[in-house]
Amino acid sequence: MHFELSQALPILERTPRVLRTLLAELPEPWIRATEGPETWSPFDVLGHLIHGERTDWLARTELILSRGEGATFSPFDRFAQFEASHGMTPGQLLDTFAELRAANLVRLDKFRLSSADLDRRGTHPELGRVTLRQLLATWVAHDLSHIGQIVRVMGRQYTAEVGPWRAYLPMLGSA
Amino acid sequence: MHFELSQALPILERTPRVLRTLLAELPEPWIRATEGPETWSPFDVLGHLIHGERTDWLARTELILSRGEGATFSPFDRFAQFEASHGMTPGQLLDTFAELRAANLVRLDKFRLSSADLDRRGTHPELGRVTLRQLLATWVAHDLSHIGQIVRVMGRQYTAEVGPWRAYLPMLGSA
Repeated sequence: MHFELSQALPILERTPRVLRTLLAELPEPWIRATEGPETWSPFDVLGHLIHGERTDWLARTELILSRGEGATFSPFDRFAQFEASHGMTPGQLLDTFAELRAANLVRLDKFRLSSADLDRRGTHPELGRVTLRQLLATWVAHDLSHIGQIVRVMGRQYTAEVGPWRAYLPMLGSA
Repeated sequence: MHFELSQALPILERTPRVLRTLLAELPEPWIRATEGPETWSPFDVLGHLIHGERTDWLARTELILSRGEGATFSPFDRFAQFEASHGMTPGQLLDTFAELRAANLVRLDKFRLSSADLDRRGTHPELGRVTLRQLLATWVAHDLSHIGQIVRVMGRQYTAEVGPWRAYLPMLGSA
């Protein structure tokens, strides 16, 4: 598929609701489950998505539109959520993510982005030249990737419990 | 995590709503997207989940409880959905899956399964001896696995569109 804003927006709009439907009121062991030391739980992923709404996607969009390639994006902190989410409940994280995402989509809509705007470029601190189209496609793929991470982390909690069926479930990893 | 019915049921209950939240009214290219020839689209996965509700999870639970190891499960047809879903809309598949899942959870609840019941065994045509606990854990992991498959298939539609960010998104596969 080629990137089309009209196809990307429905995904970006749905992600907070998908995560709420999956995670709200779920027994705490699912929310806090990880894949081992130094890996993220669904709770941690929610905090990471919140940090992206606060510091990444719209900030970079605005920088591309206002300053172009001349200004390098601020690096994204992949670990900010461990402090920022401390003491919050899963419900509070789900609410915060939904509010920030909705506000960011309002901000995005106000730009009335044209196809020419999507070709505008910015400078990523590690990746170099990128286009606004690539940034927005990455926003979508990043959402889907982290939904996939959350269900993988959850599914893997039953790796031992499924017994011989593990052979039919590649998501659980090979024995 | 050890398998606990009280922790498994909230996942099984949520899956139809998660898929509805993710897929209902989504632009058709997402629903029909695949990872290449002989791979499944979200539409195909919905049909597969429906077939499991119709022929697999509860049928096997009932066989274990009524006949134990003596009766071998019917093999599961992994391709039944291509015919069964033909001509149906995504909305019809989402409705069908939700109805069948809800009915199956009512049937499951009526068994009032004890821990001893969960240890009862059946015979899988390929895997041999399995327990009811393993079957029900697999039902949960299978749901999560196919949610993961759907978001992976969708995310990979933007593999080219994300440009250099592909390096940060393992779900898209390496270049």
